[in-house]
Amino acid sequence: MEETFVPLRGIKNDLKGRLLCYKQDWTGGFRAGIRILAPTTYIFFASAIPVISFGEQLDRDTEGSLTAVQTLASTALCGIIHSIIGGQPLLILGVAEPTVLMYTFMFNFAKDRKDLGQKLFLAWTGWVCVWTALLLFMLAVLGACSIINRFTRIAGELFGLLIAMLFMQQAIRGAVEEFGISARENPNQTAMQSAWRFGNGMFALVLSFGLLLTSLRSRKARSWRYGTGWLRGLIADYGVPFMVLVWTAVSYIPTNDVPRGIPRRLFSPNPWSPGAYSNWTVIKEMVNVPPLYIVGAFIPATMIAVLYYFDHSVASQLAQQKEFNLKKPASYHYDLLLLGFLVILCGLIGIPPSNGVIPQSPMHTKSLATLKHQLLRNRLVRTARKSISRNSNLGQLYQSMQEAYNDMQTPLVYQMPPALGLKELKESTIQLASSAGYIDAPIDETVFDVDKDIDDLLPIEVKEQRLSNLLQALMVGGCVAAMPLLKMIPTSVLWGYFAFMAIESLPGNQFWERILYIFTAPSRRYKVLEEDHATFIETVPFKAIAIFTIFQTVYLFVCFGITWIPIAGVLFPLFIMLLIPVRQYLLPKFFKGAHLQDLDTAEYEEAPPIAYNVEDQNSLSRTTTIDGGEILDEVITRSRGEIRHMHSPKVTSSDSVALGDMKHAYSPRVPQRTYSPRITELSSRVPQRAYSPRINELSTEGSPRLTRKGDELKKTPSPGPSNLGQDGHGSS
Amino acid sequence: MEETFVPLRGIKNDLKGRLLCYKQDWTGGFRAGIRILAPTTYIFFASAIPVISFGEQLDRDTEGSLTAVQTLASTALCGIIHSIIGGQPLLILGVAEPTVLMYTFMFNFAKDRKDLGQKLFLAWTGWVCVWTALLLFMLAVLGACSIINRFTRIAGELFGLLIAMLFMQQAIRGAVEEFGISARENPNQTAMQSAWRFGNGMFALVLSFGLLLTSLRSRKARSWRYGTGWLRGLIADYGVPFMVLVWTAVSYIPTNDVPRGIPRRLFSPNPWSPGAYSNWTVIKEMVNVPPLYIVGAFIPATMIAVLYYFDHSVASQLAQQKEFNLKKPASYHYDLLLLGFLVILCGLIGIPPSNGVIPQSPMHTKSLATLKHQLLRNRLVRTARKSISRNSNLGQLYQSMQEAYNDMQTPLVYQMPPALGLKELKESTIQLASSAGYIDAPIDETVFDVDKDIDDLLPIEVKEQRLSNLLQALMVGGCVAAMPLLKMIPTSVLWGYFAFMAIESLPGNQFWERILYIFTAPSRRYKVLEEDHATFIETVPFKAIAIFTIFQTVYLFVCFGITWIPIAGVLFPLFIMLLIPVRQYLLPKFFKGAHLQDLDTAEYEEAPPIAYNVEDQNSLSRTTTIDGGEILDEVITRSRGEIRHMHSPKVTSSDSVALGDMKHAYSPRVPQRTYSPRITELSSRVPQRAYSPRINELSTEGSPRLTRKGDELKKTPSPGPSNLGQDGHGSS
Repeated sequence: MEETFVPLRGIKNDLKGRLLCYKQDWTGGFRAGIRILAPTTYIFFASAIPVISFGEQLDRDTEGSLTAVQTLASTALCGIIHSIIGGQPLLILGVAEPTVLMYTFMFNFAKDRKDLGQKLFLAWTGWVCVWTALLLFMLAVLGACSIINRFTRIAGELFGLLIAMLFMQQAIRGAVEEFGISARENPNQTAMQSAWRFGNGMFALVLSFGLLLTSLRSRKARSWRYGTGWLRGLIADYGVPFMVLVWTAVSYIPTNDVPRGIPRRLFSPNPWSPGAYSNWTVIKEMVNVPPLYIVGAFIPATMIAVLYYFDHSVASQLAQQKEFNLKKPASYHYDLLLLGFLVILCGLIGIPPSNGVIPQSPMHTKSLATLKHQLLRNRLVRTARKSISRNSNLGQLYQSMQEAYNDMQTPLVYQMPPALGLKELKESTIQLASSAGYIDAPIDETVFDVDKDIDDLLPIEVKEQRLSNLLQALMVGGCVAAMPLLKMIPTSVLWGYFAFMAIESLPGNQFWERILYIFTAPSRRYKVLEEDHATFIETVPFKAIAIFTIFQTVYLFVCFGITWIPIAGVLFPLFIMLLIPVRQYLLPKFFKGAHLQDLDTAEYEEAPPIAYNVEDQNSLSRTTTIDGGEILDEVITRSRGEIRHMHSPKVTSSDSVALGDMKHAYSPRVPQRTYSPRITELSSRVPQRAYSPRINELSTEGSPRLTRKGDELKKTPSPGPSNLGQDGHGSS
Repeated sequence: MEETFVPLRGIKNDLKGRLLCYKQDWTGGFRAGIRILAPTTYIFFASAIPVISFGEQLDRDTEGSLTAVQTLASTALCGIIHSIIGGQPLLILGVAEPTVLMYTFMFNFAKDRKDLGQKLFLAWTGWVCVWTALLLFMLAVLGACSIINRFTRIAGELFGLLIAMLFMQQAIRGAVEEFGISARENPNQTAMQSAWRFGNGMFALVLSFGLLLTSLRSRKARSWRYGTGWLRGLIADYGVPFMVLVWTAVSYIPTNDVPRGIPRRLFSPNPWSPGAYSNWTVIKEMVNVPPLYIVGAFIPATMIAVLYYFDHSVASQLAQQKEFNLKKPASYHYDLLLLGFLVILCGLIGIPPSNGVIPQSPMHTKSLATLKHQLLRNRLVRTARKSISRNSNLGQLYQSMQEAYNDMQTPLVYQMPPALGLKELKESTIQLASSAGYIDAPIDETVFDVDKDIDDLLPIEVKEQRLSNLLQALMVGGCVAAMPLLKMIPTSVLWGYFAFMAIESLPGNQFWERILYIFTAPSRRYKVLEEDHATFIETVPFKAIAIFTIFQTVYLFVCFGITWIPIAGVLFPLFIMLLIPVRQYLLPKFFKGAHLQDLDTAEYEEAPPIAYNVEDQNSLSRTTTIDGGEILDEVITRSRGEIRHMHSPKVTSSDSVALGDMKHAYSPRVPQRTYSPRITELSSRVPQRAYSPRINELSTEGSPRLTRKGDELKKTPSPGPSNLGQDGHGSS
């Protein structure tokens, strides 16, 4: 993204980019067919459940002025508008916790003023929204979002982890409150007796943990060993919603003698009752607000504007991380402008506004990557099968697969040439196959295993379209109508779902993975190398990783502490924004430039030209190797980090020393990156198949260990940092 | 074992064999040092907790005539005697469920007789024990245990699974009962109100599942990535007892307003109270039993004798499965004789007798295999490190390791020559190393990775000694004194522990693994081949495996149904014994001999001489490859099945076809078994290390796929059954 502060230029660029692919945004979505429902349902639940819960909270805190009906309506309305005329359709909008806190604060302020009171509360918030919108317009026009370039991984991932902590805090607090007297219920009813409260709390624990554990399990269904493929896929796609249903059903099992109100269920007004629409005419009352308060509304408006500017942009950025290989352009400036309009709209009809939400937005992108993978895979498998049945040779097979792959690509004239995906691979394969005298033989499934090999070929791509976002917003809207049904869900299932979302957002977050890495026993660090892992694991010394991570963790806890401050706490994003100068001016004094770049790649830190280009060219192939389609979810998740894919299933503890040394001594970082793992994998597979199985077995068993043995290597001493070897022993 | 029915010969043979190693049984135990406490504690809990629970059940059912104090006393007394003068010290004795059921039945019979009544109940059971003992003497003297040879895997594993089902049934029933009114408590107290019962039940679910899940997790601690090695080892060794403590502590968290009796805890009389010893003088009252009842006692005695004869022998057999590579001889006949004496002893002092228990006995052997592995490992690591520091070459290294290994071996003159373990390995390694011109170079950690390579070398062996059995029996005895402390354990923790034991006994049971295999999706069956797996997976067609397993499953459920029959149900072992003729005469009509032998190896089915010898010679090396010490528990578990260790991390779905075909077409079963996986692994490792890492990486990545490509193979058509390939596609 161009870093421009010329008024309106950012918005113009955004519009130009998105308009070029607008038609494809829709056609691509519809062409995905019924499968689009998998990410849609997944995101719908992730979007609706917190919004319902925040609505409940708002209901309690504003004495019924705002309820879950209003939060759902706002989420649906803003979602529909954004999905149709918004810039980045991967971004999910919703009413978030900070908004709820701000509205609670404003309610407490308003209800005590004689000339405002609960009656004019919503009218006053209407004015706050007007001011907020004006500020957002200003920020959008002046190109404030350009600063997102300077918002690096360290800040984005810290924010992501903070949100996960807040979700987990909400889950724990909710579960604990199940043991207490519900503020909203009649304290004299049977269910509020201490005996029943105890039972309710324990039941809540069962339901929460039940939902959490089964949901986490069901997301991994694709790699299960049992059941047919379509069933596993179905469970992986729809398992979480299904588990909400299952545990809601379980909550109805105890009927004997158990009084009404156990377990506690969602509480919300009936949207079909006549009184439910009193707030929709707030605009008429806005003129009744005293002028002083209209002006005073500017103060909360600035806070909300800063909050939204930050949240919206970061949510959008996290949904578009480099590792997803998005093909369509970003749209930060225009989206912020549109957010301004949405805020005014919500203010005028008296509902709390929505903004871009985390972790739902990155979850959305991730689920669309899974979708795209399935679509690509099915097409290529069909093509390959047809090719094999026609007795094609390996060259023809790749030719036809390449054609099918290109066919699936979006023709995006405005960007890089398409179809980088299979090209390199094909060339290298054919070259090697021909040198093995193998190219003209007709292939069968033993040479090219359709089911498994295609997974290895597929790069990570995302089905970028607008349909899933629109559909999920419509479904959230449907929730308003279905409120009587939603009220059957126990609150404890909600808390389990909050915990699920917190945990689901962790993998792929390099900050989190660095924390885990620090706690990994030195003798077990080789295991990290065996899996997909980020570059820094190999290139940055352990000590630097540790110091960097500890600094970030301390910062995280300071931010978390700030959220506990009564009112100013909602402004914690300001403290996160402080990381931008810290990263830019302070950190380089403590860390080597190369290390810092591997730990926290910033686009503005220009690397030496060659290294940068090479990395750029190879980033696609390097980050996108998928190891077996069944573990797709996990891999896509991990791939959100910058990935180095290891093909060696066995690395010994001492070998990892070798690996580290080797890198630095013989293969300076740049050239090593020029061979993509995909090429090496293929290159070794083809010729080897010409061996007899017995020889093959004997000569290759145990071979994948990487060692530094070998005369050429022995001659040169091996200096260079090695973050793994220092204490690679002691696993006894 | 010799199949002899000559009176007393079996006992004589047993005594002769065990006396030879009696001294070593003790010295070996003491030499293990403090580490012996790990298996001891593990088995102590597995032994004591069910016995306490059965004691509770007996307490309820015999109206307090027998309590947990008596069952613990019996388990401790019999355990101590058996561990000192018993034949097979791996066998764990305890009061088991069938004994409890028989005693309940006898109590119900006795209490309604005017001339017997509750007062003479124990005296009458004394007579039952006398008769039982006489029958056991007869069976022991006549060599009835010789039949154990004919008791094959099909019956033993069915029995194991049935016990697991009964344990799980007990766990579920116990957890459900937590919601009901406790039969033993005052139904009017606060804790019995419906509200508190609901809370109690839900709390019980939390505690049970908490214990179950954390215990299962902690057993896998050795393969955790976090924490230091000794901490992981500590958790793996003592995690389960520790979890019992933790969840007992958790049960004390809710104090506010929660009445006494929630959660329900163990209930047992105080052994320190004066009335607790009334039953120890039963012998004096035995003369008061009317003669008719003395004679009538013969009827329950026959049932108990059959039961004990069966249980004791099968428990002993399962603790001595071939895969454990035990070095010391079995002792079925003598142990049955001793059991007779123990039964009389228990009868005379009025406590229910103990017999060999499942799953505790195999669990005991398994935990001792882990112990032996650690001891061997530590010694060899020390030796290897010393060797490397002296700049030895590879030959010298293996020489010194071989010496250390031999040093650790028990000098068992009466059996095969010792130290088969590292010998073949060493020879093949040295031979290959020298051909690679590598033998004289001083080695460093990159050639021989001390931490990892030693794990690959170690065969599965068991620390066979008497100390752990004696100590655990003493600890069970200590439980009687510690009854006031044990009463703090919530009953729900017990139910969780029952479920844990049921699940813990499953892996390694080939019957269970065949059930899982049947449910494995055809496209995922290659994954089974990638892991350690039993021979039949490769040699027997899927259809035959399925039919065999379904037959066994139906039989299992019939047995399970029989246990539900009120009184005759305890005789379900008779029905399992029926499997012996079924296996011997019926099954061979439905299955091919070779298939049946792979599915259910029976010693009496003599295989063709060559094949048999080869298998015999190689069984040690074939079944004992360990892949990485940290997953030791799992491997040892799996190793209980007859194992084929696959070194190919990647097997494609079509490759498994090839693998199947290959086996049958080119390598008839017998010769293929002649190269042990250990040799192939080493042979390929050494020369390959002479390559440069880069070449190595390129040439071997992806190589472990086994294929049937290759000219020699192509010439011959590949017939033969292939149980994996038939429908190896469709993983989409």
